[in-house]
Amino acid sequence: MNPYHDDAVDWVVEGTGMRVAYDDFTTIDWIHDFAQERQRTRKLHRQPGVAGQIAVIYDWVQGWIVVLAVGIAAGIVAGGSDIASQWLGDIKEGYCDTAFYLNRNFCCWGLDETDTCTEWVPWNSATFVVGYIFYIMFALMFATTAAYLVKTFAPYAEGSGIPEVKTILGGFVIRHYLGLETLVIKTVTLVLSTAAGLSLGKEGPLLHISCCIGNILPRIFPKFKKNEAKMREILSAAASAGISVAFGAPIGGVVFSLEEMSYYFSSDTMWQSFFCAMAAAVALKLMDPFRTEKLVVFQVSYDRDWHGFEMFFYMLLGILGGLWGAFFIRMNLRLAAFRKTSWLRIFPIYEVFAVCLLTAVVGYLNIFTRVQSPELLANLFRECDGGAGNYHGLCDEGGVTLRVFSLLTASGVKGVLTILTFGLAIPAGIFMPSMVIGALFGRALGMIVQAWQTNHPGFWIFASCLPDVPCVTPGSYAMVGAAAFMGGVTRMTVSLVIIMFELTGALTYVLPIMIVVMTSKWVGDAFGKEGIFDGIILLCGYPFLGDKEEYKLNTMASQVMTPVEDLVVVTATGNTLDSLDNLLHETHYKGYPVVNSLRDMMLVGYISRTELRYAIDEARRRNLPGSTPAGNVVPILENTPAFIEFRLWMDQTPITVSHRFPMDQVIVIFRKLGVRYVLCTQHGQLLGLITKKDVLKHLASIEHPGEQESS
Amino acid sequence: MNPYHDDAVDWVVEGTGMRVAYDDFTTIDWIHDFAQERQRTRKLHRQPGVAGQIAVIYDWVQGWIVVLAVGIAAGIVAGGSDIASQWLGDIKEGYCDTAFYLNRNFCCWGLDETDTCTEWVPWNSATFVVGYIFYIMFALMFATTAAYLVKTFAPYAEGSGIPEVKTILGGFVIRHYLGLETLVIKTVTLVLSTAAGLSLGKEGPLLHISCCIGNILPRIFPKFKKNEAKMREILSAAASAGISVAFGAPIGGVVFSLEEMSYYFSSDTMWQSFFCAMAAAVALKLMDPFRTEKLVVFQVSYDRDWHGFEMFFYMLLGILGGLWGAFFIRMNLRLAAFRKTSWLRIFPIYEVFAVCLLTAVVGYLNIFTRVQSPELLANLFRECDGGAGNYHGLCDEGGVTLRVFSLLTASGVKGVLTILTFGLAIPAGIFMPSMVIGALFGRALGMIVQAWQTNHPGFWIFASCLPDVPCVTPGSYAMVGAAAFMGGVTRMTVSLVIIMFELTGALTYVLPIMIVVMTSKWVGDAFGKEGIFDGIILLCGYPFLGDKEEYKLNTMASQVMTPVEDLVVVTATGNTLDSLDNLLHETHYKGYPVVNSLRDMMLVGYISRTELRYAIDEARRRNLPGSTPAGNVVPILENTPAFIEFRLWMDQTPITVSHRFPMDQVIVIFRKLGVRYVLCTQHGQLLGLITKKDVLKHLASIEHPGEQESS
Repeated sequence: MNPYHDDAVDWVVEGTGMRVAYDDFTTIDWIHDFAQERQRTRKLHRQPGVAGQIAVIYDWVQGWIVVLAVGIAAGIVAGGSDIASQWLGDIKEGYCDTAFYLNRNFCCWGLDETDTCTEWVPWNSATFVVGYIFYIMFALMFATTAAYLVKTFAPYAEGSGIPEVKTILGGFVIRHYLGLETLVIKTVTLVLSTAAGLSLGKEGPLLHISCCIGNILPRIFPKFKKNEAKMREILSAAASAGISVAFGAPIGGVVFSLEEMSYYFSSDTMWQSFFCAMAAAVALKLMDPFRTEKLVVFQVSYDRDWHGFEMFFYMLLGILGGLWGAFFIRMNLRLAAFRKTSWLRIFPIYEVFAVCLLTAVVGYLNIFTRVQSPELLANLFRECDGGAGNYHGLCDEGGVTLRVFSLLTASGVKGVLTILTFGLAIPAGIFMPSMVIGALFGRALGMIVQAWQTNHPGFWIFASCLPDVPCVTPGSYAMVGAAAFMGGVTRMTVSLVIIMFELTGALTYVLPIMIVVMTSKWVGDAFGKEGIFDGIILLCGYPFLGDKEEYKLNTMASQVMTPVEDLVVVTATGNTLDSLDNLLHETHYKGYPVVNSLRDMMLVGYISRTELRYAIDEARRRNLPGSTPAGNVVPILENTPAFIEFRLWMDQTPITVSHRFPMDQVIVIFRKLGVRYVLCTQHGQLLGLITKKDVLKHLASIEHPGEQESS
Repeated sequence: MNPYHDDAVDWVVEGTGMRVAYDDFTTIDWIHDFAQERQRTRKLHRQPGVAGQIAVIYDWVQGWIVVLAVGIAAGIVAGGSDIASQWLGDIKEGYCDTAFYLNRNFCCWGLDETDTCTEWVPWNSATFVVGYIFYIMFALMFATTAAYLVKTFAPYAEGSGIPEVKTILGGFVIRHYLGLETLVIKTVTLVLSTAAGLSLGKEGPLLHISCCIGNILPRIFPKFKKNEAKMREILSAAASAGISVAFGAPIGGVVFSLEEMSYYFSSDTMWQSFFCAMAAAVALKLMDPFRTEKLVVFQVSYDRDWHGFEMFFYMLLGILGGLWGAFFIRMNLRLAAFRKTSWLRIFPIYEVFAVCLLTAVVGYLNIFTRVQSPELLANLFRECDGGAGNYHGLCDEGGVTLRVFSLLTASGVKGVLTILTFGLAIPAGIFMPSMVIGALFGRALGMIVQAWQTNHPGFWIFASCLPDVPCVTPGSYAMVGAAAFMGGVTRMTVSLVIIMFELTGALTYVLPIMIVVMTSKWVGDAFGKEGIFDGIILLCGYPFLGDKEEYKLNTMASQVMTPVEDLVVVTATGNTLDSLDNLLHETHYKGYPVVNSLRDMMLVGYISRTELRYAIDEARRRNLPGSTPAGNVVPILENTPAFIEFRLWMDQTPITVSHRFPMDQVIVIFRKLGVRYVLCTQHGQLLGLITKKDVLKHLASIEHPGEQESS
């Protein structure tokens, strides 16, 4: 069920743990983590005098230092990878005669676009074929190296990373997913795969990279290392920073993190995310990898506002964006499933090679598929000012039919390539390609409308156009199209509008973009509720309990719980050190409900495997005999020299529900309180146990009734 | 304890209710309301055939229609009130000779600022004194009328409304607070009080008005009328629309609603809010009350970017903004408390009269306090382009000292007036005055820095300025200052940055504004954690369980609960129709725990007063004798002709916690699950009951230990 990472999913859902390092754990319990954090700060605040004051301030500052450091690091990594991938990308087409380490931009620095740059020697300066071969050769080299690195050193570096980060933010631990090796390999391979000219974006991977940083850096401080819930807050902030640097959109990053990524997002987290996103944006601005001295990547400044009749065409783009999104998701997920189950899975590197070959061979022939995506997008968004800029011939007089054809072809080719590329064994984001496809299509539509208006200015729908001045701005169609297609694929809403806004600075276009994003989402939703990321989460079977779907269940807790007959419980009295040790050896459960006695089954608490293990090891270290009694109440036997007391290790107040509790409300409890398990009782008697995994299984069995038996 | 509305607070916390109309209820239970909604949609989806399909679609469409209608209505009301208040405001200074119903702008339509407009006749055309007297007279008339209307017809129309709406969104019902009379009176009086030239804004009141619309309109559909939780979602959206129209900032509105107002904000709600805010913005744009054809109210376009050294001054503004905010909150709340406890409370209309007199007398003398706030703000933000615009003399050559003095005086006067005004018995927002004070101050600082730079261009900190071109933009200081002072008062963060961004379109200034807002918040927080709205909530003792504060409690559930000895419980057997009726007559509780028997006190469920009442009335209507047995289990007595069965009316699965549950986790349950009560049990035995009110009381007693006894 997991075409992306087959052997790597090692989460387990049960178990609690508060006292021991979290490294041994695979899921987290928010309510306990926050309780623990409260306990810690309470202790901190009780310290007297100046030292106590300093400790409190130091504790407060820590959080901000971490967030600042994560933001700055994310900005630096993003800036560095931009510079590297630009240089490598240009190498495909030529080299700088004066200094090989310069990219074309810097090589020709200071020259106008109209001047010829003699320092930059394109490979195709001799013949077209040489340039073609060099281009393909370099692309293949970059892509294959990237795939090899990923497969050999860090399988988690592949793909976008957003679905997995979302799952992690939802409270599950995927070991090593945010580790150092993933960070390094993903950064390097992202540079390579971007430079290879594959139809992929760097936004998702940058978010993943940023979260790796957010996972590694804070562990310097014990406050974060020991508290996974606190760590999730930093990760939320890091996710904001990732989007912030990817799009140069700090506010968009925060809202994205809030809307799409985060599970428990308090006001405080929002503020931290904001700070982190800002730090990242500043760091990136200071690095200024494109030497544009602009924070806004694709700044547009249209002379004209949009007209009422254009809304019709914009909405058409919205509908097409939604359709494209639905089509893309279906195709890509089908391909992902095929990739997983067929012979393709054995040859991931060859697959990358093949797709890259196809991309390079086809892509080189059309200017719109050849140039790097950010440059292309910037030009597509631009208004023809009749001046110096030619922008890949977009602003030439005449030849509109040919150019429209060329744009539409490029859009189609990019579309097919993107379906093939997203899911390969290399880092690959989906934001940028979606935007490019939409922008190409939108620009084509815009040019058609423009030609129509120029040729038939008297037509009634163009009544609002002033005579003798340009009326239609094709660049705005490209912008709207980019939003529509990206919306269709990702189903983002508010964050997408904000990102487009920050990306282009086109303030007057907020309204059309809003409407288009809405249209695109509705059309897309009609064909399938999930965006691409949720689709992947479902396809991979990640244990993510989303907060978007409204589950409509008829079931009760008793139908889902593991009944008490199948549970291994610990009794509050009658156990010894040895009997508990045996229990741990014989069973593999992550935790055990504690009951008063097997006869009355009165629930006393819940003890996790780790806590119990710890208690036993502690006792063994003190050389207590195996017959030492262990139990709940303190003075079990008055004259025993030693005993193991449960109370210290047990969760004495587990969350309980009635066995007749409706399952949809149980889900609300799991979601909102973030617990890992819930005990079902009746009149204090233990009746069963429901874990998060049980809930997910139950939901899966309801959505796909057939699969229940097979899984 | 409630200086704003003394006799009007009629919420009660206990009780549950699902089956009867909500009008009788005063708090809501999210978990039950959502459960009810799920049940309803489940039933809907079970309908077969085409009719079922249509019913589902109709149900879906309903929500969007409501949101659209609310948005449009909010836009229209906002636009209408803008037009009306502008006209009334201008009447104070003169009248249109050609048509009295035109404001100055329309009266002089088509003329340049430099031309003299003969159609508009200022009252002071004869002598200064006549103009002065007319100005004061009109102002007093408007303000006193407003106060009279508020006090007579809708006391809830006074103030900003944001604290109360926040409380309502938190799940409490304040009867009539969002009613029709409030809507009408608040709209009319807002126009009057704005026109009176008082130092108040219309943003908060517009939010309140918008929420009134959002409360009234959806009740056409039974789906909303019967479900308060669903209503809250619409209210969240309406709040977004309110901010959207107040600032022309749809995205800012959504984020504000999310950050500041909403309690349960699912992804779905965000999308709805977005739609509503957009509809409102479009409606407003179509009305175009200012005839500017711009969505952006204070569009600025600076020729120059900011320089590194300016960040120091911006941060200075941030610090001052934070200090001002802390000072304002302390002073205003102290005044509010005084207003409540002293003789002032008897003369609210005279108080408005006095403040208005002071405002008019002092305000008329300084151009910066005389002009209406939106116009002033627009001019303060503007860059001096050396061209036609003079902007109240801000761009004159020379006389800088005098102008700086005038700006600072205006800032101080406005500050004092705002402290006095906010809390009067008229609709009054705090956003706009805060911004104006900050903008005046900022502009003054900007002019000082500009003069400094012009006179000492060689000074080292100005090294980054190019020679012979203007370097410092005082308008940007005004903008930053506005953000800083508003941030200090409201402690808004992300939403404030977005609002400033949308308000001015100053994209390159996002970074300084972010940093300033952050500085301002930190400085302000150092003097008191609450923003003005939370301060009012606390002062008024509104039952709002915020999700921002981290409560650090040492207590357990058993210390807070009402112990079972003090509770009136219903037994599952042994009751009759009469005995229950008596119970309802003798006690006033909103609900009763149901136990198996008084001996074992085993918890069976919870029955609310309303449900019980309904069950009894039902039985009485069927003419059942008073001795009819009533109880939990179905066949109480095999041969009884009739009986009242609890199960139908009882919440069989109330949320229970162990009596040793830590209180901070109990608070998490109240917050996250939105329940109204929690039952404490041990081994299934009922030990006590905790209501939201108990929690709030407990928190208050911890924060103010002394007050516990006195209250």
